[in-house]
Formats: sequence, structure tokens, C-alpha cells
Amino acid sequence: MNMNITAYPTADAAPSAIDADLALVIDTLRMTSVAATALANGCAGLLAVETVDEARELAPRHGSLLGGERGGTRVDGFDLGNSPIEYTVGRVSGKSLVVTTTNGTRAVAKARSSRRVWLASLLNARAVADRLRSSGFGGVAMICAGTQGMFSMEDALTAGAIIHRLDGMASMDDFAQACMILYGSLRHDLTAALRGASHAKRLASLGFARDVEFCLREDSLEAIPALGGDGWFVLL
Amino acid sequence: MNMNITAYPTADAAPSAIDADLALVIDTLRMTSVAATALANGCAGLLAVETVDEARELAPRHGSLLGGERGGTRVDGFDLGNSPIEYTVGRVSGKSLVVTTTNGTRAVAKARSSRRVWLASLLNARAVADRLRSSGFGGVAMICAGTQGMFSMEDALTAGAIIHRLDGMASMDDFAQACMILYGSLRHDLTAALRGASHAKRLASLGFARDVEFCLREDSLEAIPALGGDGWFVLL
Repeated sequence: MNMNITAYPTADAAPSAIDADLALVIDTLRMTSVAATALANGCAGLLAVETVDEARELAPRHGSLLGGERGGTRVDGFDLGNSPIEYTVGRVSGKSLVVTTTNGTRAVAKARSSRRVWLASLLNARAVADRLRSSGFGGVAMICAGTQGMFSMEDALTAGAIIHRLDGMASMDDFAQACMILYGSLRHDLTAALRGASHAKRLASLGFARDVEFCLREDSLEAIPALGGDGWFVLL
Repeated sequence: MNMNITAYPTADAAPSAIDADLALVIDTLRMTSVAATALANGCAGLLAVETVDEARELAPRHGSLLGGERGGTRVDGFDLGNSPIEYTVGRVSGKSLVVTTTNGTRAVAKARSSRRVWLASLLNARAVADRLRSSGFGGVAMICAGTQGMFSMEDALTAGAIIHRLDGMASMDDFAQACMILYGSLRHDLTAALRGASHAKRLASLGFARDVEFCLREDSLEAIPALGGDGWFVLL
């Protein structure tokens, strides 16, 4: 069985009904890194919603913590922002989370028509690749969330990191090939590579340089958030 | 004066009103390669229109040749298809052309709101870069046409080829950086790089392998098609 990877440079570039065995949503700075960290630290389930109002309405109904950002910073009255380092065992273990973020949540909405949806980041790139290798999946869509409709370097590098770890077992469309080549060129110093990247620079200017550093820790987590039938992300 | 380059992976990804000193439209396979070749071979002016009907209506009104493709091949009744090698001195010298193509024409429509619009390809990458270096332009948008809404490797490589030839004089957004890195990785053998690229493979399967080879001749033309006030592309 041959695996075919189709990759999209932004959520907007992905068609509204993706027909794939698996859609991988990639929003490395920071939503998909937050999700992997939260589940690794014992969070019981994570619901990603598009609007702040929806999040505020659903969290009390499920007894969930509220997390997420608008303009990069924590929404007023929310328990948690969009920094993975906030999502510690002490804060999230045994609890459920309702989150809303600008770019990642929109990419999740595009992914829902696929048979499976997982959340990928540099943190779990090796874990995702390992599961893909034994999956038998035919069509895999990689949706790079991007930033406000624009291509983001860190998402393309994450797609490339996963493809790189597949050791040539998949055929790829042009953008998936491009991601693999970018990762191959930059992987020896991702920190330097992101120094000129717009989203990483913006986060640093907002005081989130430690988040960027954290999100670059490749292969540090085994956790893969996978969408369940009830709409919540849980550990695969 | 610092030059800022913003690059778009597809025509769809570009906003509908780009506000730039210059928009470079890149449809390397094959529309922008055709345009440079035609003007280099003495074509008096080239009008790019979106529909076959419009092309059929306008060409006789201007006494122009009709050129272009649908599904890769020449439109029924047109004088010329979308192969740059057809646009010889014998065919086009002293004549005007009305052309319509699938992807390139849509990218031109997106570019029209900019103060200047040029057509770029690998054929005129050096010529475009040389003009940019002495231009004093601030904002430059590079619109990769892509193929049916998808990222195309050859357009990204062309953007990268131009940026590479600017020798670090411009600041770049993430996608422009990605194009430069891709080109840096693949430039020593573009033919091999495009062997796995979807658009090049499709053209080869339609019998246009010679076109692909022709369009990869970097820096072989000085001609830069530039949009005039009357809507026609002429030599810059």
C-alpha cells in the first residue's frame, strides 16, 4: 500500500472537504504544541472551537478549563493562554480543556471531513511518523495552519520533519516535497532558521520567546492528539 | 531604501487588492515563459484575458494572433498553444497576441492593483533581478501562479532564483525565504528537481517534455514583459 501525502501551505489553501484517511493539522506556534503538551500532562480531553463566545459557553457545561488566545495573548477571563509551558501536570491533569486559537482552530475545521484527524508539531514529529509508518493509510493530508492566511515557516518545517522521518516511504505532492527539502536544509539549526520567521519574531516581541524555544524541542513527546467521534481530542 | 518581498504560494493565496510597488507574476510552466519568449522574438504586445470567449472576441478587434490553452493543450481554432517554442520570430514578430491560460491569467488578475506588473520566469530571472536591484522599489509582491489552486515547485524555484540573484538586498516574508532556500538546495540540477514535480510530469505526459526543458533555461532572455496603462504587456 502506497502512502500519498498532499500538503497545504495554509488552512485557506486546503479544500473545504478533504477526503483523506488522515488529516494532520500543524500549528506549531502554538496550538498543536499546546495540545500535545496538555494531553502528555494528563489532560483528559481537549475541544477546539472557533469563537471565544463558543468557548465561554461550552467550558462550564463540561466543567472544563478555558484556554486560548486572540492576538497572541490570553483571552480575558480564560484560565490559560496559548503557551504550552502553562499546560503543566498541576494545571491540566485529569481536567478537560476547551480552547480557541486564531489559526489552528480554523485548520481543524477544514480537517474534520477526513476519516481521522491528528494534531502534529515538532514536539511529536517522531511519534507521528512512527504511527504513520505502521498505519497502512493511503491518503494523508498535511494542513499547515499558517498565520492569518499566510505561509508560516515553522509549520512547513514540521511537515518536513515528519516526512523526513518516514524515510522515503511516501509519495508526495509538490508542497510536501518542498517541506521535506526545507527541513533537510534547516534542520541542523531550527532556532537560527526561525530567527527570521515572522510568527516566531512576533511571538518573541510579545514576550513569548520561551514558547518558541519550547516548541522547537523535536521528538520530545510521544503524545498524539487524535479527534474522537464526540469531537474531543484525546490521546491516540 | 529597503526592499520588502512578500511571496504567495498560489494565485488564490494572494489578496484581491495587492498594494505593492511591483507585482511579479510567476507561471513558469508556461504562461510567463511564453510571454518573455514572444516579446523577445518581436511580438508587439500581449493581452492576457481570463476566458476563451473574451480572447476570441478581442483578437480580431485588435488584429491579434490567438494563443493559449485549456487542460494544457491548444484551444480549438487558436493560432498558437501554450508552448514557448511555438512563439518563434517567424510566427510573432511585429504581431500582437491575445492569450488565455488556466493559472497564469488568474494570477495577472490578482496583480493588477499594484503600481507595476511584470511577468517573471526562469528564462528572465537574472534580467528581473538586475532591474529590481536598481529600481528603488519598497514593496515587491511575488505571485506564484501555482496549478489549479495548488503550490507548484517550478514557480517557487523561480521566485527563489530571482531572490538568490538579489544577493541579500531584500528583506523577505516566510514564503519568500522558503523559495530562496528551495532554490539554493535544488539549483544545481533543476531538471532533476522537477522530475518529481506534478505540473512538469503532467506536461511531459501530454507530450510537452521539450517545453519543460526550454522553460528551465535560466537567464537565457533579457525580455521582461511589463503591463502598460492600456492593459497590454510590452517590453520593459
